[in-house]
Amino acid sequence: MSRVYNFSAGPSMLPLEVLEKAAAEMTEYGSTGQSVMEMSHRSKEYQAIIDNAEALVRELMHVPDNYTVLFLQGGASSQFAAIPMNLGTKSGKADYIITGQWAKKAAQEAERYIKVNKVASSADKTFSYIPETNKSMFDPDADYCYICYNNTIYGTHYTEKKIPDTDAVLVADISSCVMAEEIDINKFGILYAGAQKNLGPAGVTLVIVRNDLIGDTLEGTPTMFKYSIHRDNGSMYNTPPTYGIYMLGLVLRWIKDKGGVKELQKINEKKAKILYDFLDSSEMFKGTVVPEDRSLMNIPFVTGDEELDAKFVAEAKAAGFINIKGHRTVGGMRASIYNAMPIEGVEALVEFMKKFEAENK
Amino acid sequence: MSRVYNFSAGPSMLPLEVLEKAAAEMTEYGSTGQSVMEMSHRSKEYQAIIDNAEALVRELMHVPDNYTVLFLQGGASSQFAAIPMNLGTKSGKADYIITGQWAKKAAQEAERYIKVNKVASSADKTFSYIPETNKSMFDPDADYCYICYNNTIYGTHYTEKKIPDTDAVLVADISSCVMAEEIDINKFGILYAGAQKNLGPAGVTLVIVRNDLIGDTLEGTPTMFKYSIHRDNGSMYNTPPTYGIYMLGLVLRWIKDKGGVKELQKINEKKAKILYDFLDSSEMFKGTVVPEDRSLMNIPFVTGDEELDAKFVAEAKAAGFINIKGHRTVGGMRASIYNAMPIEGVEALVEFMKKFEAENK
Repeated sequence: MSRVYNFSAGPSMLPLEVLEKAAAEMTEYGSTGQSVMEMSHRSKEYQAIIDNAEALVRELMHVPDNYTVLFLQGGASSQFAAIPMNLGTKSGKADYIITGQWAKKAAQEAERYIKVNKVASSADKTFSYIPETNKSMFDPDADYCYICYNNTIYGTHYTEKKIPDTDAVLVADISSCVMAEEIDINKFGILYAGAQKNLGPAGVTLVIVRNDLIGDTLEGTPTMFKYSIHRDNGSMYNTPPTYGIYMLGLVLRWIKDKGGVKELQKINEKKAKILYDFLDSSEMFKGTVVPEDRSLMNIPFVTGDEELDAKFVAEAKAAGFINIKGHRTVGGMRASIYNAMPIEGVEALVEFMKKFEAENK
Repeated sequence: MSRVYNFSAGPSMLPLEVLEKAAAEMTEYGSTGQSVMEMSHRSKEYQAIIDNAEALVRELMHVPDNYTVLFLQGGASSQFAAIPMNLGTKSGKADYIITGQWAKKAAQEAERYIKVNKVASSADKTFSYIPETNKSMFDPDADYCYICYNNTIYGTHYTEKKIPDTDAVLVADISSCVMAEEIDINKFGILYAGAQKNLGPAGVTLVIVRNDLIGDTLEGTPTMFKYSIHRDNGSMYNTPPTYGIYMLGLVLRWIKDKGGVKELQKINEKKAKILYDFLDSSEMFKGTVVPEDRSLMNIPFVTGDEELDAKFVAEAKAAGFINIKGHRTVGGMRASIYNAMPIEGVEALVEFMKKFEAENK
């Protein structure tokens, strides 16, 4: 038995070194005589763990001092409500760009609380591109403008030039690209990410929010959805997901040891290029996304023949490449190659695809 | 270095065997070639893990078929809002009994959504008892009646005869006594518990809800707070806290191997008796709760002298009895002796207390 290459969209691969460290510390963390899982969140030992996680977020993402870093529960789906509840207090209007299922769900939830203006959508072509926008399309009174920075399901990704040119506060879901590439925090009011792709286990949501945006909330906002409550209590208003935050800290330490986000981005670009170059040269496998909007993290591809797709997925699994089946709305295959996927994993996948192509043409 | 006796109120001790199994499986779970933390929640391997956890909850707690078992995020603090949002849809009124800080917080959050009738309170004596009630005190139109079954901070506990005699649906926070004693589920409409005391790591909330209570919600209820959404999606509407649920499954397996809740209750009664008997005989240490309402799980005690309390806490810590300091609202000490605290831990603590008393009289 040996470890597989796991191309899951999330939860997803974690660095083996991180898992080994977690295993070694499971029954006794340092000289505390207890597992991190058993620690009181009010103990100084645990305070050091959460402080370390926050410090690493700040260092690795170059988070400016006028932003608050929160570790919350409830995933992106909770943020879909928390964002309008915390930001939609002035005009009660927001702009959304619909680039996939998650942006759509975010907009649907927001519509329950505020007026949502769907500025643009790429639904016409199964979300295979990022729509162009220009300043005139945005509501100057909007409380914020929402984008999904990297679309896990469809494999599209914002580049600098398509970031909305709006005066409103920008909010971005960066769940599937956080710490995989450099992002200029200053452009955004809120950036948030579920941990289970690039940061650690499921059950922790990283929320980075500019301080001046934390304040009033819509009436009826549950206390647990108020950013102010979590800021005032250092993410410990109630018991946080203590072990998940510890794991996140271990992953961030690994990122730092690898040279930080800048170095990982170079590796991620190399990994993605290996797969995209092959897709662009293959007679059998084709990428589904327009080249200029391709994600570094999530790479969907198809053969154009559903039976052949299914055969590929089954043979890939047997060969140790798991979770490579595409999302049902796109079909075919998808390789999610987050930070923890080594370059060898992508190379091995491409070799396997070449072999499959040769055997099945 | 060796493991300490951890008397934390939560997160708290876990069985060493469980931690050892988690460590052994950390890098490769069974023959899957991956950590549970890395598993797609949509994989059949993970489905088996969450199904097993639910089956064990049903078996160990004798959950009737007309109840739904949910694994949610956000802790009890999220349930404080979710309960009125899901149940307060008919009369928009509920009865609360205020037996401590958590019941009070639950009532405060509920008041933001519905009319709350505070039926009784034990605030007059620092929540050191469970108030008596009778049927005439309850609102026959209330959508539900809320109690905190075991009060972690104050060490009080409901017994059969004090359970509210109301026709309304009973809702109970059982965070600090779940699976530590037998509870007749049929008496309740909703029972819920944060996992971090008796069930596993922080970040998972077990909610057991009678099927007929799942339906409409108050307007503005976030999708993530709707029980119907989580029921319809088998607790996987969004990515659940996958590793926490796995750990909970390991703890429940351990409970089953120990003979189930009935057997653990016997051990818990024995453990509590050892400590209460000593408190009742000591010249120095006194329990703070009236005998008839004493908790099996959380045992606060004081010397009556703050300096002596502090000295005891410091010396206890040095001797490997950690997190024994009482909550600031009660002062003194508190020993939380959940399922995972072995009888030897309680015996050793009492021996230490005797020695301290002899040395400091």
